[in-house]
Amino acid sequence: MQQFNNKAGQAFKGIDGGVTAPKGFLAAGVHVAVKESNLTKKDIALIYSRVPAVAAGVFTTNKVQAAPVLVSKDHLGVAGGQCQAIVVNSGNANACTGEQGLQDARAMAQAAASALKLQEEQVLVASTGVIGLPLPMDRVLPGIEAAAAALSAEGSKAAAEAIMTTDTFLKETAIQVVVDGVTVTLGAIAKGSGMIHPNMATMLSFVTTDVDIAPTALQNAVRQAVGKSFNMITVDGDTSTNDTLLVLANGEAGNRVIGEESPEYQVFCQALTHICIEMAKMLARDGEGATKLVEVLVCGAQSEKDAGKAAISVAKSSLVKAAIFGSDANWGRILCAVGYSGAEMDPALVDLFLQNPEGDMIQQMMGQGAPLTFDEEKARQILEGKTVIIRVELNQGSGKATAWGCDLTYDYVKINADYRT
Amino acid sequence: MQQFNNKAGQAFKGIDGGVTAPKGFLAAGVHVAVKESNLTKKDIALIYSRVPAVAAGVFTTNKVQAAPVLVSKDHLGVAGGQCQAIVVNSGNANACTGEQGLQDARAMAQAAASALKLQEEQVLVASTGVIGLPLPMDRVLPGIEAAAAALSAEGSKAAAEAIMTTDTFLKETAIQVVVDGVTVTLGAIAKGSGMIHPNMATMLSFVTTDVDIAPTALQNAVRQAVGKSFNMITVDGDTSTNDTLLVLANGEAGNRVIGEESPEYQVFCQALTHICIEMAKMLARDGEGATKLVEVLVCGAQSEKDAGKAAISVAKSSLVKAAIFGSDANWGRILCAVGYSGAEMDPALVDLFLQNPEGDMIQQMMGQGAPLTFDEEKARQILEGKTVIIRVELNQGSGKATAWGCDLTYDYVKINADYRT
Repeated sequence: MQQFNNKAGQAFKGIDGGVTAPKGFLAAGVHVAVKESNLTKKDIALIYSRVPAVAAGVFTTNKVQAAPVLVSKDHLGVAGGQCQAIVVNSGNANACTGEQGLQDARAMAQAAASALKLQEEQVLVASTGVIGLPLPMDRVLPGIEAAAAALSAEGSKAAAEAIMTTDTFLKETAIQVVVDGVTVTLGAIAKGSGMIHPNMATMLSFVTTDVDIAPTALQNAVRQAVGKSFNMITVDGDTSTNDTLLVLANGEAGNRVIGEESPEYQVFCQALTHICIEMAKMLARDGEGATKLVEVLVCGAQSEKDAGKAAISVAKSSLVKAAIFGSDANWGRILCAVGYSGAEMDPALVDLFLQNPEGDMIQQMMGQGAPLTFDEEKARQILEGKTVIIRVELNQGSGKATAWGCDLTYDYVKINADYRT
Repeated sequence: MQQFNNKAGQAFKGIDGGVTAPKGFLAAGVHVAVKESNLTKKDIALIYSRVPAVAAGVFTTNKVQAAPVLVSKDHLGVAGGQCQAIVVNSGNANACTGEQGLQDARAMAQAAASALKLQEEQVLVASTGVIGLPLPMDRVLPGIEAAAAALSAEGSKAAAEAIMTTDTFLKETAIQVVVDGVTVTLGAIAKGSGMIHPNMATMLSFVTTDVDIAPTALQNAVRQAVGKSFNMITVDGDTSTNDTLLVLANGEAGNRVIGEESPEYQVFCQALTHICIEMAKMLARDGEGATKLVEVLVCGAQSEKDAGKAAISVAKSSLVKAAIFGSDANWGRILCAVGYSGAEMDPALVDLFLQNPEGDMIQQMMGQGAPLTFDEEKARQILEGKTVIIRVELNQGSGKATAWGCDLTYDYVKINADYRT
C-alpha cells in the first residue's frame, strides 16, 4: 500500500486488486489455446460491469488497424459510449485478416453479449498476438462462454493473465481517491511488451472505475491521461496495429456526476493519470527482454512539447538502451538523441545527469555543454540499478516531460527473432 | 568488374580502387592509437588532390554537431568550395567537447595544411568514434604529419582502414563513366556502422572524382545522390553527431566544365548516385552485428515521398529486423511498419512479397490486403540469404523508393552495450 499526493495535496491511496476493485465489476480469464502451442496460460479475458458504464477509448494511430480496433470503435459510436463488457483474447492479434477478421471480432462481441444478455454494441473487443492468422473461432467462442460463467469479483488476476503475451509479470493496480466526499476506486490491468511505441494509446490496457462521470468528461480525461503516460513510453519504436486503452466508469460509487466544469474533475483526471502512469511504467519495465526501467526527465525546454520529443527520443535510442544494458555511462549518445529529436535546443546550455530513483546517487556528466569529469564507478552503480534516471536540463525555458523505456538486451533479439513458433 | 547501365542506357564501369582511382588524388592512413586500446589499426586518414578541387559536403542534421562538422562547414564557406585535402581520425568523434574540441579540429586542419603547404581553409576535417572525450592531440598531430609523408596513389585502402570503427570490412569502390567523350573516374571510401539513420548525410563517406564541374552543379548533384542513397539506409535509427559526406572534384579528367544546364550533368548525377548507393548498401550490410542486407522496395505509393517514408520505416523496424535475423516470415510486422510510417496507404490494397536478389525465388504473403497461403520453407530459404528483398506494392499510384537496412542481432547489443571500453 502506498500513499501518493496529487498537486492539490489530495491523497490517492494504492490498494490491492485490479479491474474488479471498483464496485460493480467482475472479471474472468480462461484457457482455450488460442495459439495451439499455449498449453496452460489463460488466453480469453472478460471484464463486466453489472450496470451500463460510460465508456471511452483510445486506439492505435497505425493506418493498419486490427479488426477488434475497428469493431470497438464502431461499438463505442453505436452504443453512444454506454458499454458493459470487454472481451479480449491473446495469442492472435486478428490483424491483417481481411473481412473474415471483422466477422470474427464481431462474433466475439456477439458471444459475450449473448452470454451476458447484452446488445452486441455494448461489448468492446480487443486482441493481441501474432498478426495475419485467422482466429480459431471453434475454440474462442466456447472460451467466451466459459469466461462469462467464471466471472467473479476476484477475477482481475485471471483476466490480467489472459491478456499477457511475452509479458514476464502480470500487470494490475488499483487506487482510491475521495471525490465529492465519496471514495472512488480505479482499477486497471494491462499487457506489454513488444511493439510498444504508442502514439494515441498503447498495447492493451483496461481501466475500470466506479466514478459517476459524463461521457465527454471521461473521454477528455482519458486523452489527458494518455498524453502523460502511455504515449510517453517506448520499448522498440513500433506502433502496433492493436493498441487499445478502454475505460469503463459505472457510477456505482455514488458521487454526484462529474462534468468538465465540476471542481472534482481535475481530481479525477489526476487519479486517472496516476493509474495510467503506473501501468505505463510497468509496461516499460517489462519491455521484451528488458532488465531495467529507464526514466528520462527533460526540463528547461522551450515548451512541454519539445520536452516530450526530447525525452521520448532518448528513451527510444537503441544506442542509449544498449549502453544502459551494459551499465556503460556513454552519455554522448543521450545528448545525440536529444539533438536529433526535433526539439529546440542549444548544445552549449545542456546539463546532463544520471541518478537513482532515491535521489541519493547523482553523477553529472555534462555542464553547460561541456563534458565534466565524473566518477565512473559511481555512474556504473547507478546504471546497475533496476531503475535508471536520466535527467537532461536544457536551460531554455520551463517545459518539462518524462518518458519511460527500458534497456536493449540479447533477450529482446531472441524473443523477436522467432516469435511465431 | 561489373558493368551497369544508367537510365540513358549509358554504361558505368566498375573498376578497382577507391579515392585514389581518379586522376590527381593521393591518400594515406597511419596508426597513432587515437584510442589507447587500439594497438594496430590505422586511425588517421588523409586524402589529397594535387590541384585545388571543387568541394561539396552534406552533414548531419542533428542539432548536436561535432566540432569537425562545424569546422568543415566553415572551411567550405571560407574557401568558396575550393579545397584540396580531407583529414580524418577514427576512435574519437570530437563531439560534445566544447571549445577545446573546436580548437582541436582546427589544429587538425592546420597540421594538414602546414604539411601540404595549403591554407587551413583548404582542408576539411572529419572524426568518428566515442563522443565526449578530448582528442589526444599529442598523438594526432604527429600522425597527420606522418600521413602527409605517406601519401601515395595506392593509399586508398590505408585511408579506408583508418576511418573504420566497428566496421567489419573495408569499404571502397570506384567507377568510370564517359562524359563529353572523356573518361571520368569517381572513387569513394566510407565507414559505418552504428548510429546510422541519416537525415541529410550519413556517417563518413568521401568521394573523389576527376570530373570538371561547377561548384553549384556539384553541390546539387550531391544532394540528389544523397537523397537516393545515404538518406535511404538505416541501421539503428540514431542520427549521428558526425555524419559527413564530402566530395572533391579536381577537373583532371579534362572534360568541358559541367554546369547544371550541360547535357552531361544528368550522366554525372547518375554516376554519383550510383557510387553513393553502392557505398550506402555496404554501410547497411555492415551495420553493427548485421548478418544480412535488407532491401525494402515500396511501389505504387501516392508519391515518391510516401514510398520513401514507408520503405525506411520497414527497414528501421526493430521487430522486422529481429524477425529477419531469425529467418521468420513474420510479414505482419512489415505491414505494421508501413502503417505507422506516415505514408498514405489503404491496407485493403496492399500486396506483399519476399524475394531473393536474383528474383528466382519469390513468395507472396499478402494480396489485396488479405493474407495468402505461402510456402513457409521457401520463405525461410529466401530469408536465410545474405540479401533479403521485401517488396510492398501499395497499388495507389506510381511513387516508388528503395531503402536498405540490416537485421537486428545479438551482436548489435553486444557491440553497443560496452562500446567505450
